[in-house]
Amino acid sequence: MTDPLITLTTDFGDASPYVAAMKGVILGLNPSARLIDLSHRIPPQDVRHAAFFLASAVPYFPPRTLHVVVVDPGVGSERALLFIEVAGQRLLAPDNGCWTMLAQPTTVIRLAEPRFWRTEVSHTFHGRDILAPVAGHLSLGIDARQLGPEANEWVRLEIPKPRAVRGPLSGEVLFVDSFGNLITNLNPAELRTPPTRLKVGGRSHRFQWVDSYAQARPGSLVMLTSSNGLLEIAVAQGNAGRKLRARVGTRVVIS
Amino acid sequence: MTDPLITLTTDFGDASPYVAAMKGVILGLNPSARLIDLSHRIPPQDVRHAAFFLASAVPYFPPRTLHVVVVDPGVGSERALLFIEVAGQRLLAPDNGCWTMLAQPTTVIRLAEPRFWRTEVSHTFHGRDILAPVAGHLSLGIDARQLGPEANEWVRLEIPKPRAVRGPLSGEVLFVDSFGNLITNLNPAELRTPPTRLKVGGRSHRFQWVDSYAQARPGSLVMLTSSNGLLEIAVAQGNAGRKLRARVGTRVVIS
Amino acid sequence: MTDPLITLTTDFGDASPYVAAMKGVILGLNPSARLIDLSHRIPPQDVRHAAFFLASAVPYFPPRTLHVVVVDPGVGSERALLFIEVAGQRLLAPDNGCWTMLAQPTTVIRLAEPRFWRTEVSHTFHGRDILAPVAGHLSLGIDARQLGPEANEWVRLEIPKPRAVRGPLSGEVLFVDSFGNLITNLNPAELRTPPTRLKVGGRSHRFQWVDSYAQARPGSLVMLTSSNGLLEIAVAQGNAGRKLRARVGTRVVIS
Repeated sequence: MTDPLITLTTDFGDASPYVAAMKGVILGLNPSARLIDLSHRIPPQDVRHAAFFLASAVPYFPPRTLHVVVVDPGVGSERALLFIEVAGQRLLAPDNGCWTMLAQPTTVIRLAEPRFWRTEVSHTFHGRDILAPVAGHLSLGIDARQLGPEANEWVRLEIPKPRAVRGPLSGEVLFVDSFGNLITNLNPAELRTPPTRLKVGGRSHRFQWVDSYAQARPGSLVMLTSSNGLLEIAVAQGNAGRKLRARVGTRVVIS
Repeated sequence: MTDPLITLTTDFGDASPYVAAMKGVILGLNPSARLIDLSHRIPPQDVRHAAFFLASAVPYFPPRTLHVVVVDPGVGSERALLFIEVAGQRLLAPDNGCWTMLAQPTTVIRLAEPRFWRTEVSHTFHGRDILAPVAGHLSLGIDARQLGPEANEWVRLEIPKPRAVRGPLSGEVLFVDSFGNLITNLNPAELRTPPTRLKVGGRSHRFQWVDSYAQARPGSLVMLTSSNGLLEIAVAQGNAGRKLRARVGTRVVIS
Repeated sequence: MTDPLITLTTDFGDASPYVAAMKGVILGLNPSARLIDLSHRIPPQDVRHAAFFLASAVPYFPPRTLHVVVVDPGVGSERALLFIEVAGQRLLAPDNGCWTMLAQPTTVIRLAEPRFWRTEVSHTFHGRDILAPVAGHLSLGIDARQLGPEANEWVRLEIPKPRAVRGPLSGEVLFVDSFGNLITNLNPAELRTPPTRLKVGGRSHRFQWVDSYAQARPGSLVMLTSSNGLLEIAVAQGNAGRKLRARVGTRVVIS
């Protein structure tokens, strides 16, 4: 049998002893767990970024992989911690909507059984004191229904929807990747013809519609279908975010 | 039986081929070793930071986990390389005190047996040429006493102690985490009443004493007990280090 | 039997969901694969940096380790994707020469069999859609000859060669590590006597020839043999790149 997989996604930063402490707690309970770092560089407390990140990565994992997500601006408040079964995967995360982009959940449980937590629970680090030990216990095979009662409601994250205003399609930047490529919330499949006009943050730009970056000369602005199916604005072998001074939330209008 | 765990902590940076080379050397000797990255972003040659980092993470791991630590300003000098059993864990590290915050060691051995090293040992990369192969051999089950003679003395790291000067408690920032939270060397348990005054780097600040960040309005300055038990200064959903221009070593006075 | 090792090297950045998606795809095919991050911080699209990185790390791994490399400025163009056996290791990489510093290959195969790819292949993310699934299949034991036809030619990366101009040896910076140490393409073994003069980027500098950083006072400029055998310029406990304003490609002349 394969040793159980547990992925980790946090906003702690790669330099953080907090990630290392969580790894220790999980392995301390189950030394056979196989830890996979997804990213520890979610921007601090940016739940929306975490949601986009998870939607881009989690669906590819083997069914029932356990994903621990700690982006938690509400730590120490009354916000719940949840176990979620969604899209065939299992997640442990604060109740902040970071997983609601994935799909409708089949099970949501509110963590309420301290016997699966560390004996002393701090007010500021539930990742180490609750989520990590619960992940360890789950990886050892306990039934998730032991963790607490079923939840009937949870925070849902509003993903900004594009609007069509008589012709032009108006949306915004959802994500800027490490190359500076701008992933928008616009869906190229909704366009009958390739767009001919582009405004980013109120300014018009000339661009080329391409299938891949390689079709354009280095340095030129292109639009294409991103690898996740959304409309992407890029500079071939360059950085569109920097060139257009765009970031998450910047308005994008195409027609 | 579970495959042996080996953690890695260095100041090489995440972009470094040096970390990758060490992983190759360990796995080259023992392809079953399971490598866990703790962090490769210890600030270059900052032994004190490494000490705080290890104290925050190492104790959570399963007993006898092997931790390889390469923060080594003295590489190529006469400083020794050590195998240490401390706090139920096993470490391989240069003799620079980075582990002395953990506890009193039960065993300290000076690495002196080149047959467990790479055949050619460079002057500048003992992580790859000595520590990594020794870790590989240990994970295969050799007895640590084969590595060299027992050591009777070693570098101890002075951790700055807080001082109480008739009332006010004077300490300093030990660690700034990725959120900008300031972890000090002050122990809230030593206070009879919650503090009412705070000076950071000589300047007074208004603050709120809280149990968790969530009790304060976003942007406000708070003091609380950190997840490791020490006094922490934070800005709710903000960055205290930036706001107070504080860093490791900045003086903190409370009363 | 040991679970198969697969290393990952990309220019996606540590914050990227693209790395996480690739991990999911590999593990989705083979949950027993053991993933080792080498680095995700190759500078974007910098094939030469990737080549130096791989040459510094890949040879240390156990024979036949599978290394997936995604530094791919040509994604979406007609550039091939290759399976390569070289230096006793196995690589999957775009045909951009990133592996040609390692050695002469024993086998090069052009990936041409879509049955080993994801069903839908995007134009911009062949790492997730082709290289990751091929890695998963290889780790399950398929014969590499099933992946496509043998390739007879491939891109070779020109590594700048040092020139000797009547006495002075002229080369350049190949790599700047995270400490700011400058690794050059000059080979100290070619010098009959230790060098006495140094020009970096046209400016002369005083330096000390040492075996290791520890032989010099902190802050002083030194030259030494790097851990990979090449000539290295460093500042003891400092940052030579910053001090000399040098970067990859900066000319270095010694005599």
